[in-house]
Amino acid sequence: MSTVKLSLSDAYDLALECLLHNGCNRENAEAVAGRMIQAEADRCYSHGLFRMPWYVSGVKSGRVNGHASPTVERLAPGVLRMDGDGGYAPLGHRVGQAPLMACAREQGIAALAYVNMFHIAALWPETEALAEEGFCAFAFTGSYPYVAPAGGKSPLFGTNPMGFAWPRKDRPPLVFDQASAAMARGEIQIAARDGHSVPETAGIGPDGETTTDPNVVLKGAQLGFGGYKGASLAMMIELLAGPLIGEFLSIESQQDDGGLKGPPKGGELILALDPARFGAPDEYLERGERLFHAVLDQEGTRLPGDRRHASRAETRHSGIELPARLHREIQDLMA
Amino acid sequence: MSTVKLSLSDAYDLALECLLHNGCNRENAEAVAGRMIQAEADRCYSHGLFRMPWYVSGVKSGRVNGHASPTVERLAPGVLRMDGDGGYAPLGHRVGQAPLMACAREQGIAALAYVNMFHIAALWPETEALAEEGFCAFAFTGSYPYVAPAGGKSPLFGTNPMGFAWPRKDRPPLVFDQASAAMARGEIQIAARDGHSVPETAGIGPDGETTTDPNVVLKGAQLGFGGYKGASLAMMIELLAGPLIGEFLSIESQQDDGGLKGPPKGGELILALDPARFGAPDEYLERGERLFHAVLDQEGTRLPGDRRHASRAETRHSGIELPARLHREIQDLMA
Repeated sequence: MSTVKLSLSDAYDLALECLLHNGCNRENAEAVAGRMIQAEADRCYSHGLFRMPWYVSGVKSGRVNGHASPTVERLAPGVLRMDGDGGYAPLGHRVGQAPLMACAREQGIAALAYVNMFHIAALWPETEALAEEGFCAFAFTGSYPYVAPAGGKSPLFGTNPMGFAWPRKDRPPLVFDQASAAMARGEIQIAARDGHSVPETAGIGPDGETTTDPNVVLKGAQLGFGGYKGASLAMMIELLAGPLIGEFLSIESQQDDGGLKGPPKGGELILALDPARFGAPDEYLERGERLFHAVLDQEGTRLPGDRRHASRAETRHSGIELPARLHREIQDLMA
Repeated sequence: MSTVKLSLSDAYDLALECLLHNGCNRENAEAVAGRMIQAEADRCYSHGLFRMPWYVSGVKSGRVNGHASPTVERLAPGVLRMDGDGGYAPLGHRVGQAPLMACAREQGIAALAYVNMFHIAALWPETEALAEEGFCAFAFTGSYPYVAPAGGKSPLFGTNPMGFAWPRKDRPPLVFDQASAAMARGEIQIAARDGHSVPETAGIGPDGETTTDPNVVLKGAQLGFGGYKGASLAMMIELLAGPLIGEFLSIESQQDDGGLKGPPKGGELILALDPARFGAPDEYLERGERLFHAVLDQEGTRLPGDRRHASRAETRHSGIELPARLHREIQDLMA
């Protein structure tokens, strides 16, 4: 595969320019480009520049507001709500972080309900950002219906990731961000494209039978990880990112899209806890490290996020390699 | 198996009397007996009268305080801490519920950190109780080290359950309470006793190899459900029920037990959200029902907790059947 080498800053400029040329104002373009390049830097390609054509099409179709101006409202002493004004999530995240942190510092625990935003994407950036400032954070979001309920055959829940972050002493936070589905949607699509099989736990066909054929899974339904327990988590996340905050269920989000297959519109719930207010302000970091050391003392283990951090350390110097075809596609979007 | 039939109220009286005879004051005995019979009524036997000899031994050994007087302190506007005074968890739960609800109503979201309690047990009773009063609730707790970290071979995390509850319209709340481990500890022990095999996903032997022999798993380590994702949840729960609130990790809890194999001492974190304060007070119940209907519209599905509710409806009239041996054992504890 032919690739184009770009420094992170050149990649950012490319993304920024493309978004500015395609209906985003500077504030929105900067937030989206920043998030994309953050994903590239961590080698989470499925959230990186790969998304550009899709992001651009969302704005061009008129569905997504490239000039969104998100606003925060305080619904209760510990609850904030941000209306994303129909824009992409990254600007909402950027605007929402400071008020959420202030609220959590004041209250000990605070929630931020994001509504009216498009494509929440990976949850590690916003949870990691909170943990870098010392908070313990959760994030929950839905998407389109891909995952069957336990015992069922038809897609109903989103792949519904949950993110969690914990601050560490003199190190980047511990962060995980995992779908409730056994396998990421993108991985199944890639297996289908490349003619590979998928594990039997990944999904079922339209007949409800397990299969290792990714094409059959894509026509049927994905399954929750670990069977019914992952499906329970998917249901919980539907409730938190939908009904609780007055936003779409994944099935409603798909209806709203009306067959365009554009970025999903929906909600996200973030919880931030200030560990200094939970009764052990002098111990929590130390005790957390004790746990992490006990994990790493066992051969064959690593902590969630270790690979991302290693990638980040490398790409800071090496820059990234973009498939030449994608690079051209992005340039064509500016022609 | 020979059994003894008891009405729920007779079963409660039996439990109460046994605890009163064995070092618990009335307040503690009532709370523990109530929780045990609630489990019997829902046919969650592993949290029912089966536990009585173990509970009694905990008090008799002097480890557990049968006269505990739990106290609540407010650490921040949205954070409460309850010191369980070294007693069993049910009294702490009973005392903590009202202040937690008041705090969540006032703040929109509130946390209650339980510390210095023994044997947190199932998490559905306390989360269900909150959802019955209209709250959305989470609970997290550790135990003793049984589960290996992802890629590791040795037990480190507890089976670490997470409970979640959501209020429903004119129905009992939706509640799930699931271990991060692929299989409950008790199920593996029962398989070992009865000479049955366990699924390959349940655990590994001391050599780190998967096995279907429950005896080998008991010598080795259990695994998280769905592999590394369940292990991530187990780690999250260790952090929330331990370091965050100044309580033991599961490995520390085992050290503290000093080989007695008595009830584990530790912490529990509960979060309560008032859905009326999250921006959609008139919609959240309806939207939740829409999701549940979509689940139940699919053949072969049921909602988490359905079996417990069905059992509860039955045992209210039928009472319970206690193994005669257990009944005798409990009576012997009062001789």
